[in-house]
Amino acid sequence: MRHSLYPLMLVLGLVSAGFHASAQSPANQDEVVGALQNAALKSDMAWRLLASLTSEVGPRMAGSEADARAVRWAVDNMHSLGFDRVWTEPVTFPRWIRNRESAQVLSPFAQGLAVTALGGSPSTDGPLEAEVIQFETLAELEAAASRDVAGKIVFLSQRMRKTREGKGYGETVVNRSRGPFVAAQKGALALLIRSVGTDSDRLPHTGMMSGSEPGDRVPSAALSNPDADNLLIMLDHHEPVRVRLDLDVGFDGEATSYNVVGEFDGSEDLQQRVLLGAHLDSWDLGTGAIDDGAGVALVLAAAKMTADLPVRPVHGTRVVLYANEEQGVYGGKAYAKLHEKDLDRLLVGAESDLGADRIYRFKTRLSPGAKPVVDSLVSDLGRLGIAYEAGEPAGGGADVGQLRKLGLPVIDLNQDASRYFDLHHTANDTLDKVNPENLRQNLAAWVTMLYITANSTVDFGPVEKSE
Amino acid sequence: MRHSLYPLMLVLGLVSAGFHASAQSPANQDEVVGALQNAALKSDMAWRLLASLTSEVGPRMAGSEADARAVRWAVDNMHSLGFDRVWTEPVTFPRWIRNRESAQVLSPFAQGLAVTALGGSPSTDGPLEAEVIQFETLAELEAAASRDVAGKIVFLSQRMRKTREGKGYGETVVNRSRGPFVAAQKGALALLIRSVGTDSDRLPHTGMMSGSEPGDRVPSAALSNPDADNLLIMLDHHEPVRVRLDLDVGFDGEATSYNVVGEFDGSEDLQQRVLLGAHLDSWDLGTGAIDDGAGVALVLAAAKMTADLPVRPVHGTRVVLYANEEQGVYGGKAYAKLHEKDLDRLLVGAESDLGADRIYRFKTRLSPGAKPVVDSLVSDLGRLGIAYEAGEPAGGGADVGQLRKLGLPVIDLNQDASRYFDLHHTANDTLDKVNPENLRQNLAAWVTMLYITANSTVDFGPVEKSE
Repeated sequence: MRHSLYPLMLVLGLVSAGFHASAQSPANQDEVVGALQNAALKSDMAWRLLASLTSEVGPRMAGSEADARAVRWAVDNMHSLGFDRVWTEPVTFPRWIRNRESAQVLSPFAQGLAVTALGGSPSTDGPLEAEVIQFETLAELEAAASRDVAGKIVFLSQRMRKTREGKGYGETVVNRSRGPFVAAQKGALALLIRSVGTDSDRLPHTGMMSGSEPGDRVPSAALSNPDADNLLIMLDHHEPVRVRLDLDVGFDGEATSYNVVGEFDGSEDLQQRVLLGAHLDSWDLGTGAIDDGAGVALVLAAAKMTADLPVRPVHGTRVVLYANEEQGVYGGKAYAKLHEKDLDRLLVGAESDLGADRIYRFKTRLSPGAKPVVDSLVSDLGRLGIAYEAGEPAGGGADVGQLRKLGLPVIDLNQDASRYFDLHHTANDTLDKVNPENLRQNLAAWVTMLYITANSTVDFGPVEKSE
Repeated sequence: MRHSLYPLMLVLGLVSAGFHASAQSPANQDEVVGALQNAALKSDMAWRLLASLTSEVGPRMAGSEADARAVRWAVDNMHSLGFDRVWTEPVTFPRWIRNRESAQVLSPFAQGLAVTALGGSPSTDGPLEAEVIQFETLAELEAAASRDVAGKIVFLSQRMRKTREGKGYGETVVNRSRGPFVAAQKGALALLIRSVGTDSDRLPHTGMMSGSEPGDRVPSAALSNPDADNLLIMLDHHEPVRVRLDLDVGFDGEATSYNVVGEFDGSEDLQQRVLLGAHLDSWDLGTGAIDDGAGVALVLAAAKMTADLPVRPVHGTRVVLYANEEQGVYGGKAYAKLHEKDLDRLLVGAESDLGADRIYRFKTRLSPGAKPVVDSLVSDLGRLGIAYEAGEPAGGGADVGQLRKLGLPVIDLNQDASRYFDLHHTANDTLDKVNPENLRQNLAAWVTMLYITANSTVDFGPVEKSE
């Protein structure tokens, strides 16, 4: 096939990048990818989508009125971007609401504490006052005698460490996910945790307690890091520290939101598509810029730029903007359940949900037969400063990972997460935290990965199902 | 005179610093200063005082219950530190209170805004809803026609720039100090300003509107920088932006707090003292660590270290911890009024009220006869990396500056203010923001300046009165 690419190359700014393709030979693919990268590195499309979502919708907690507006925003924008088809799939989940939250030290040193309730927390049903008992880790709480803990407010003071991979999160998030249940088992009245976050701002980090932990839970909230530090200094006086906690929060029936799905067709194969995922919901404290507005903007922009090529890749693209990831991966699980039977319509999947800082690494989980694709990725992502981590298989992320568990081949484009957990799940998750240049580098990586995979005819699978 | 310094040198850690003094010759003074500096650079005294004030008292807005606790804290700590005499002097002022504050964009894009009322703001008397009209600067508002502004909420969007000297503050604080009055003159219903601050955190900066501006004022609040950015993006759509503002704040009678004064005597002259000042009150949002807990801790620790020398300097020290600086320099003005007649009891004054980052520069306002003292300061502060700014006279700070206006000679030890206005007047003004090493460098500079001035017999004045 030969195509006259010139008019659309002009539109994409590819001509000035020195691009003169003629056919889809391997050499041509390198040229297309190079031109796509150059265009992405100059593009403000992802930024404009992100600015639109964060200003026109803003915080969009699952099941809220703003969540419904986010769904409309996604459908409208997919239409405006020219997706070949757009639809929604319902996702139902328990609605959790936050009305009011506050905490104060009553004695020996009266002052306020900056707190936010953990998602899934029950209400305190009016102010609750009790003495604080501090442990550093959940293991210490588990080892404590119930008689020492009963009737008190447990404070878990463990600090998250900062790493590029975000490994500190896995080490400390257990305080948030399991702490409320362990505290209940010990007879505590409530739980305060040091925020699972690496900043030093007076902005506590919310996040869900585990939905899978059996048993009762106590009212639970996170302290900002400075407040946790302050409380530790007070406890050092070895006098009883009494705290008042007032959380008017809790579950309130069911809500239904929607996975928003949009497709671009490929140039030849209309059966199989590359899946790009991100989640549309956010926590309620910030405007959801890094979690996960950036992901939403990136997968939309990458799909659009690739579909606007003079010659689209062989296979099409399916973008899924998942509902309610934050409170239990409801959208990802619903999608996996609904599409388990037609999983063969997807070639390979990838998800963006770790902010918007530079992609520095990629991982794959593909069949050996996909080696030519990996080779192309190594070469073309390498130009963007992205290294291949061959020793560790890709996970697919929270939502797309639900399909990986069913055997979908996946690729991870790993963002530098050093700064991510400064902002994650706080009021500080706002547009100004996104570096436009880093966002463009992300976009360049996504169009590279999308074009190479969608234009390939190798077998990406089968890969083994994995938990 | 000869003294056996050895036992106390041991206590101060001076022996290990290689200090063996014998008499108060000029050479001996250099040795004492060098040893004091070495001891200060290893001392945690200022840190411990600051940790105590921020944890045991915390936020201490003038006229609040916590302000009264701060006064007791100051008196108790001066006694514990062994001040030769400690007393309080009443300061009366209008009490301003903050009960509740919130703002939301209603249309076209509903979402919350992080706001804090400006000190001195009246209440909105329930939620107030109106369209926003934006100007960048106060000058633009002043030039606007009342018919365009009347009935609206004015938004001043000017951004403060970051400098080491803090010059950006003077350029933008006029929005806060005069904006509420100019907005009222134009018939506006309320004022929103971009925070006078250089950070990008979702924590708005409070601060006082001018108490000296004549006429009415409108209810006024500051938006955090990210919220100001977000509002600007919304306004770019050129549709009316309606905001709801709910400020339950306002003046409520009078309150009395206290300047807390403590003195150490000198070794020879019991008549004249060096004055060290800082302010004890803070805004209510943070724990007042950098504004001005650090100043309080530094002047207390500097006075204590100098008084604990085996041979005290010739003159004594008077420390004044001023009441209610934040809402109109009430403590500084009351002190100046009360002590105008006995100003000759003070040799020279200095104030610490710009955080706790490194001192990089000093300025003086002294008579020509004090040149030997300036020479010593140039030499001894130089060892701490502190340069003399000879071209600009010292101002004395907000509180001590009230005495400079009456002719008191003053010295400024200038802190690097690059980071100060990230935190100033926000909930983020907490202990964790203070770098212990920088605090020790401050302490070293303060003991240097205190010892050299208090041990001198030159005439510091007269200097001209200045506004």
